[in-house]
Amino acid sequence: MTAPTTTSSTAALSAAVAEIVERVRTQSPLVQCITNFVSMDLAANVLNAVGASPAMVHDACESGEFAAIASALCVNIGSPSPSWAAGMTAAVEGAVGAGTPWVLDPVAVGATAYRRDLVAGLLEHGPAVIRGNAGEIMSIATSVSAGRGVDSIASSDDAVDAARQVATRYGAVVVVSGRVDVVTDGQQVVRLHGGDDRMPMITALGCSATALVGATIGVAPQRPLHAALAAMAVLAVAGERAGARAQGPGSLRVALLDELAALDTGRMGSARIELA
Amino acid sequence: MTAPTTTSSTAALSAAVAEIVERVRTQSPLVQCITNFVSMDLAANVLNAVGASPAMVHDACESGEFAAIASALCVNIGSPSPSWAAGMTAAVEGAVGAGTPWVLDPVAVGATAYRRDLVAGLLEHGPAVIRGNAGEIMSIATSVSAGRGVDSIASSDDAVDAARQVATRYGAVVVVSGRVDVVTDGQQVVRLHGGDDRMPMITALGCSATALVGATIGVAPQRPLHAALAAMAVLAVAGERAGARAQGPGSLRVALLDELAALDTGRMGSARIELA
Amino acid sequence: MTAPTTTSSTAALSAAVAEIVERVRTQSPLVQCITNFVSMDLAANVLNAVGASPAMVHDACESGEFAAIASALCVNIGSPSPSWAAGMTAAVEGAVGAGTPWVLDPVAVGATAYRRDLVAGLLEHGPAVIRGNAGEIMSIATSVSAGRGVDSIASSDDAVDAARQVATRYGAVVVVSGRVDVVTDGQQVVRLHGGDDRMPMITALGCSATALVGATIGVAPQRPLHAALAAMAVLAVAGERAGARAQGPGSLRVALLDELAALDTGRMGSARIELA
Repeated sequence: MTAPTTTSSTAALSAAVAEIVERVRTQSPLVQCITNFVSMDLAANVLNAVGASPAMVHDACESGEFAAIASALCVNIGSPSPSWAAGMTAAVEGAVGAGTPWVLDPVAVGATAYRRDLVAGLLEHGPAVIRGNAGEIMSIATSVSAGRGVDSIASSDDAVDAARQVATRYGAVVVVSGRVDVVTDGQQVVRLHGGDDRMPMITALGCSATALVGATIGVAPQRPLHAALAAMAVLAVAGERAGARAQGPGSLRVALLDELAALDTGRMGSARIELA
Repeated sequence: MTAPTTTSSTAALSAAVAEIVERVRTQSPLVQCITNFVSMDLAANVLNAVGASPAMVHDACESGEFAAIASALCVNIGSPSPSWAAGMTAAVEGAVGAGTPWVLDPVAVGATAYRRDLVAGLLEHGPAVIRGNAGEIMSIATSVSAGRGVDSIASSDDAVDAARQVATRYGAVVVVSGRVDVVTDGQQVVRLHGGDDRMPMITALGCSATALVGATIGVAPQRPLHAALAAMAVLAVAGERAGARAQGPGSLRVALLDELAALDTGRMGSARIELA
Repeated sequence: MTAPTTTSSTAALSAAVAEIVERVRTQSPLVQCITNFVSMDLAANVLNAVGASPAMVHDACESGEFAAIASALCVNIGSPSPSWAAGMTAAVEGAVGAGTPWVLDPVAVGATAYRRDLVAGLLEHGPAVIRGNAGEIMSIATSVSAGRGVDSIASSDDAVDAARQVATRYGAVVVVSGRVDVVTDGQQVVRLHGGDDRMPMITALGCSATALVGATIGVAPQRPLHAALAAMAVLAVAGERAGARAQGPGSLRVALLDELAALDTGRMGSARIELA
């Protein structure tokens, strides 16, 4: 799962994004999610809306076995406990053994010692993509807490250096979600504009972004940078369209699911991708 | 909990359905649900919308005790673990001991060895109704995996024979959800048309159907075929009405809850029931 | 965490409510929630909508540590198990040790022996606020079950005496949710009108009310009566506004989140507060 090192034009990136989104719809990747209790509903519905097939299979009694048949695995530590941590480890080991790509979401990693240790252990298993907010990625980079919980105060731009460090250190693509999303494999840095200012008011939308990365990397396992970018672009485009008709966070969430289901290659062409 | 063996006319079935739906509204059955993390929210809201009273009581520390006071129990294995499995077993034993009817939803039973064993054990306790998609019911019939996860590829019609076998073997009514729903007690086979093509994009709607069967069998414990049909008819009628004004899966879910709350005997008259 | 004993005018209460709601928006309190599986999604989104920062941190591996950095802690026993109970106890001990105010939601306390014992144990740790429906508060007052589950049959007015007893016994502010909400510190009794008749059809809205009390007491820890009243007023005002444009429980929930995000001091002025 080596990150690509060739640079691309924005046109090439846009084409790759549109192609991957179309693949998700036609191939319906089976995305195993071990995620927190808050995001279960939204993450599964987001996956369903884009044409993927979600499977919330978390416990060690079956998580490793399932990871071998899944197209991709997402591990989100948002509401951790020892039994869930065991399920995460079993799943990650099953994924690595079977060549299933996996995605890490280090929710609020800086908040408690337990989360720091859990993330440190999971990182040893080589995630293909790590997605977090600026505070979370900076926490991993510095091993010093920069976060006060799941909501981040730092901006994505502050975290670009941290993201490149983390990507290089772990051989993973890193996504920093924010007003502007940043995606990097350690060398190339891509920025993505779009979405709606009220999207942070939808709880677990970041977790759902991680689930979407599972869907995209499930159909493009050899191209983690493109896959991660495609997932974020899906949310950016659908979020912007949904925002145009939403009155607040409640209706924004509803409209977002409608827009996700209506995305096609044409609409994905409006993704605003920028090379750093 | 013997399944009825008399055949009925569609008119008689429609009348039974309408009467059971009205009973749910007036008697507000207390429906204990042990369900997966994804479906918790939707299943509870669906039950509330039709006038039932949901209670998500899952752990062995209280699940057996509660099953004795509940009108019905639903056991959905969607996100299993040993501790939840223990809670399911305790609940089922409590239900059987107290004469509380219970409903089994064998989510993705073919996907892992753990799920197969868990379902095999639960089936020994005599569920009144088993509700699944075609792949799940075929997995139970053949003990061979036909499913790739929670979403089924086989159609309901393919599963009619399997459903009759399973119904006869376990003395239960079997519901196969799909574009056309099939309900059978092993002898009589009833088909139900309706709903909206986008309903499979609403995650956990199948789990919510199972919860609805809990509500209907809670008010008609001696008539599992009618109860199961009534639950599916409720979703089919409300789903069709909701679909007429929904723009996608997000607004479909919202409209569905509104329509469920607005169902009355008159609207239930539009249920399209067909005898095989 | 002594309850205030001075009486107030409704004008003074209204002013306190508006000021606390504004504080939530500007200070964004970090609210740790240990809540049931059904309410995770809605409670977090309700907190986000009013400007608070939710954190669902439940397990003993980190719940006590986190309670020391949280602005407030909410403990909701809606889907209990021994491991979650251990996490609740650790969190409450961490909160008390750090001076973090905490709120108890005794969901369906009368339904099982396990819940009664769990609540009895938690009450020894001095919650600042206890929020329940009439049946739950009466169960605590009498140690006799008056509830059949999470939905209450008794009205809030029936529970006024019980609420005063419980408030006095535990030195806490008690909130009884219902068609008319009652808030008392044992001496002063405040009633709150508003909301929408269909709000009980939104599952876990009571749990979300508890989460809102966490947000308000997080910014006004020395004024639990005002904080509890502010939380309930937020729901009453937003619920009434949402109800004016909702077609059923599905659209009511969506509109409620939109209205919560749009609340300001002017709108809060329409809260209908009544002194008993």
